[in-house]
Amino acid sequence: VFARAGYQTHLYDRDPAQVEKAVQWLAEDLELDRQAGLLSADQTTALRSRVTVHDELGEALAGAGYVQESGPEQLDLKQSLYAELDRAADPSTILGSSTSALDMTEIAAGLPGARRCIVAHPVNPPHVIPAVEVLPGKQTDPAVVERTCTFLASVGQKPVRMNFYVHGFLLNRMQAALIREAVHLAESGVAEVDAIDAVIRDGIGLRWALMGPFGCANTNADGGVREYFTRYRQAYLNLMNGLGPTPSFDPALIEQLGEATDAMVNNAPRAEIRRWRDKMVTKIRALKKENPGL
Amino acid sequence: VFARAGYQTHLYDRDPAQVEKAVQWLAEDLELDRQAGLLSADQTTALRSRVTVHDELGEALAGAGYVQESGPEQLDLKQSLYAELDRAADPSTILGSSTSALDMTEIAAGLPGARRCIVAHPVNPPHVIPAVEVLPGKQTDPAVVERTCTFLASVGQKPVRMNFYVHGFLLNRMQAALIREAVHLAESGVAEVDAIDAVIRDGIGLRWALMGPFGCANTNADGGVREYFTRYRQAYLNLMNGLGPTPSFDPALIEQLGEATDAMVNNAPRAEIRRWRDKMVTKIRALKKENPGL
Repeated sequence: VFARAGYQTHLYDRDPAQVEKAVQWLAEDLELDRQAGLLSADQTTALRSRVTVHDELGEALAGAGYVQESGPEQLDLKQSLYAELDRAADPSTILGSSTSALDMTEIAAGLPGARRCIVAHPVNPPHVIPAVEVLPGKQTDPAVVERTCTFLASVGQKPVRMNFYVHGFLLNRMQAALIREAVHLAESGVAEVDAIDAVIRDGIGLRWALMGPFGCANTNADGGVREYFTRYRQAYLNLMNGLGPTPSFDPALIEQLGEATDAMVNNAPRAEIRRWRDKMVTKIRALKKENPGL
Repeated sequence: VFARAGYQTHLYDRDPAQVEKAVQWLAEDLELDRQAGLLSADQTTALRSRVTVHDELGEALAGAGYVQESGPEQLDLKQSLYAELDRAADPSTILGSSTSALDMTEIAAGLPGARRCIVAHPVNPPHVIPAVEVLPGKQTDPAVVERTCTFLASVGQKPVRMNFYVHGFLLNRMQAALIREAVHLAESGVAEVDAIDAVIRDGIGLRWALMGPFGCANTNADGGVREYFTRYRQAYLNLMNGLGPTPSFDPALIEQLGEATDAMVNNAPRAEIRRWRDKMVTKIRALKKENPGL
């Protein structure tokens, strides 16, 4: 994302093998983009040259305005990583974390530079899906929130601000709510996995690419959200109170879901499905850009 | 949908004013399609001429292979309506219901023609969103399920089969699960309405237009659904067990959501947003047709 947007991008990992993998993955991904005509050979070379690998953290941090930390999701590891980053980085550098689970209030607790530490949780793969959940810790300077959002928007991402920490943030909580009910429906035999997916991909999912639940509700009644939730209040209360419980996700259930999903996709190679998915998301984003709605 | 697919389509309602409204709405919608270049003037005229209004139910049913009943969502009304339809329609005619809430087992209980009664629940507007939930009652002939699905597919819809009745069917249950968590997040102040919608429309919703929760899970790990749900089992159990409760939907909450949604859409006229939404869904469906994935 950063290199595509024209920024010099420094890579560092304590384990050089991880950096090697990242660089190789980047080369493969750029090659696919080149083959698909999304990037010219020159652009690919230029982009690749903006990404440099560094053996020393201090070297990687030199001159950095923004750091995207993506270490393991363990609080003690993140804390020691942030202590190290805070010591080594220029005081003006923003230290953003890709964490999807941890609270920056705890990660940066007691650090002299806690005010410049912030969560910026992207969705995989970030150069395809633009949303980034931006979440300050209690010590984070509001100006750092602003600067992070401005910077992320400048590289083509869609920063989404949260007011305070909640487990799972926004996206994963709503995704978990949907998956919980989807798995419940499959497990109870109401419908097959393919049918459950079909009402999303050929149904409401076509709208969710354009608007979230509130935007959809707004268009579902002439009087908007107020009329919609007032008219269907009791129907929604009944539905919501009757949703399924958290499934077991025991091995037999997971195997059942795995078999049904394999059949649904005709055992197509996942790498191919992913490439199709990413190409299509890119095309949908282009459609939205050409036809701005809201 | 039926007239667009080339079928002679007969309209009947006990209340002639309702039919008048339907015909007027159809004319307006066709005119918008003509202005948008989606239909030629000739196609518009031909399509309109395939839709005829009838004063008598028997006349409307004459020669019909398929009926799409869309009466009020009250069991006693549906029961008397189906008794009337079953008496008046040729025994070979399929009697499909648009109900989103009722069970055909109860609607058609005791009718001589219960075997040809079935739920075929479309999504609004059906000529834009293709999914139709198809759900037999206990007495429905399996051959009628087949014929209904074949017919709906032949008019460009995506029939989605359910095995048995469950309150809310598939789509509305999953939608309710998502809305429940979205409203919980807004009510608890974790994020603004616009942010909650943004992680859908600029995040996971971009995928849900292409694949449902199982299709997404399949692409989220190299080992597919099995690896994904095994690796993240505990994370999902924690998340799912920590989701918000059913909100009150009391007037103050609905007003708060209404104000925030109005601000999100800059008070844009809902009719315009709907037109944009429908145009964009049509374009996304065209993209998917041009780039078949699964």
